[in-house]
Amino acid sequence: MAFQDVSDLALADRASELRQDLVTGDWVTIATGRARRPNAFASQREFLHDAIETCPFEDLEKSGNAPLPLAYQREGGSWSVQVIPNKYPAFTRGDLGCPLTLDHGPYSWMEGRGFHEVVVLADHYRSIAELPLEAVAELFRAYRERYLALRDEGCVNFIAIFHNHGREAGASLTHPHSQLIAIPAVPPDVSRSLEGSERYYEGHRQCVHCVMLDFERREQKRLIFENDGFVALAPYVSRAAFEIRIFPKNHEPHFATMNPSEERQAAEALKISLWKLHRGLGNPAYNFFIHTVPVRGHQYDHYHWHIEIVPKSQVWAGFEIGTGIEISTIDPDAAAEFLRSLEK
Amino acid sequence: MAFQDVSDLALADRASELRQDLVTGDWVTIATGRARRPNAFASQREFLHDAIETCPFEDLEKSGNAPLPLAYQREGGSWSVQVIPNKYPAFTRGDLGCPLTLDHGPYSWMEGRGFHEVVVLADHYRSIAELPLEAVAELFRAYRERYLALRDEGCVNFIAIFHNHGREAGASLTHPHSQLIAIPAVPPDVSRSLEGSERYYEGHRQCVHCVMLDFERREQKRLIFENDGFVALAPYVSRAAFEIRIFPKNHEPHFATMNPSEERQAAEALKISLWKLHRGLGNPAYNFFIHTVPVRGHQYDHYHWHIEIVPKSQVWAGFEIGTGIEISTIDPDAAAEFLRSLEK
Repeated sequence: MAFQDVSDLALADRASELRQDLVTGDWVTIATGRARRPNAFASQREFLHDAIETCPFEDLEKSGNAPLPLAYQREGGSWSVQVIPNKYPAFTRGDLGCPLTLDHGPYSWMEGRGFHEVVVLADHYRSIAELPLEAVAELFRAYRERYLALRDEGCVNFIAIFHNHGREAGASLTHPHSQLIAIPAVPPDVSRSLEGSERYYEGHRQCVHCVMLDFERREQKRLIFENDGFVALAPYVSRAAFEIRIFPKNHEPHFATMNPSEERQAAEALKISLWKLHRGLGNPAYNFFIHTVPVRGHQYDHYHWHIEIVPKSQVWAGFEIGTGIEISTIDPDAAAEFLRSLEK
Repeated sequence: MAFQDVSDLALADRASELRQDLVTGDWVTIATGRARRPNAFASQREFLHDAIETCPFEDLEKSGNAPLPLAYQREGGSWSVQVIPNKYPAFTRGDLGCPLTLDHGPYSWMEGRGFHEVVVLADHYRSIAELPLEAVAELFRAYRERYLALRDEGCVNFIAIFHNHGREAGASLTHPHSQLIAIPAVPPDVSRSLEGSERYYEGHRQCVHCVMLDFERREQKRLIFENDGFVALAPYVSRAAFEIRIFPKNHEPHFATMNPSEERQAAEALKISLWKLHRGLGNPAYNFFIHTVPVRGHQYDHYHWHIEIVPKSQVWAGFEIGTGIEISTIDPDAAAEFLRSLEK
């Protein structure tokens, strides 16, 4: 089946299916019939940029956002990436040591200590999809440099790296920016992912992500893009329509072990994946994040770091919030075929 | 501190905190400083109703939605609640027996068999908050009647009952309606809640929800409303700003054991909670859902059924999606004080 336009995908109607995530054991629903509902592709609307005149990321000094020094920053006035502390941080005072923990009646409570940084890209209007490869590679370099710096802070145990594009995806400013949040605890979803990966390794003596990648590269149906180091694919167990995951081909638990050539390959896989979403779905809102192992503690050699891109194709409603079962209205095979067919 | 208006709550700024859910063990973040961000209360916008002329719930026969018979339905033309099969169901063909399960390479796959019903309220414009108590009690009666009917289907193991109010909360039609989805598997979030409740019971020989309720009723700070049978409160571990949970005061695992008088009390607690959100936050979008025990299998005497109301006060962004840690920008003590102070 060939798709002329994204709305043709809604025609690929099949009976509803439940698919189980190999890593977490969670079930997702693929219900393609629901894509025929009116407004199912509502995310294809005009992308509204904030006014450049009032954007606090246009002149960082003026808006009181003193950039942190980056080791690789270019000399002179031009910059493609800067890092600043978040002005409205979700976590603070990470440099003051480990958080106090207390009981409040039957509950456990912990100070919200940590670091919350913003990685600002230079161009107000162009999203990652539209940037030259060099600028995206520099973004990865900034991620890695700040990751390594935060990893050395005393009480940090997990560093979340993520990017919100568009209001519907929770970006409070449209000027392209990523964020790093470094916290003392390993977050619940990351724990479950690590536990699932460990459980699989104990049962099969293989990395669960390597097994999936191997199967996907043989089946080919859900592949979207690959280069020497990375594969971008539509996961068989997609949580959302047009979800994309990017994996390094070689088994590697740690995101931050990349060398400059791998960084460039990861940047290419990310840029092309985002470009295909931009082009095919009309610049949809999306989130992406990096899943990598915690900083300390346990050995996590069984894990395989990766990037997850989740377009905001539908709102989480009562069923998803109440059960944890996500409903995707697009068959990942059809999503991959559609995205693969678009020019890079 | 007294609040004149909801925006005053953003002034109650405290350092960021992590709080651990007693049941699931998950951490949430309370970061009140982030409420000062511009547009933090963006959900206070005009509620846009669909045109009544084209609403498929106005004339069910005409729109091809034949209502299921309800045992208690009034004689004559008037009705306050009707139940119809969902026209774009996420699950289908539940009456054909248990779903086929298959392996696809390393993955597990299951037919999406089940039932997906819509509980339609009569009034196109008035939300549950604005209905007379009698109509809300009838809504509960419909939930319970359809729950009991679906429970007797061969392969159903969990029945989700939920309600989406407003587009931002995923309602594809604004005409007030709830939904029931009956499926063969116990959903992951429900499993985690059941496991956490069981673990607590094994450790403490007490129901975890009874322990919380007892503490909350002694501390009083987070109570919003109570009647003879039910308590509505802002959870100490709130996942979202202005979240409300409603518990029966007596330990009871099963939602469907309610008698008509309890049904009326539950309806009152729900109606008043939703009215306070409507009044205090300017008719925000929200989801609510019922957490009750699975239909068969295991004994779940340790569990305590309840209703969770989650206003759509912020979008889940990359951090929440990537880590599972939710960030609430309102201190639940302040939220409860504000909601308590509003007239019923």
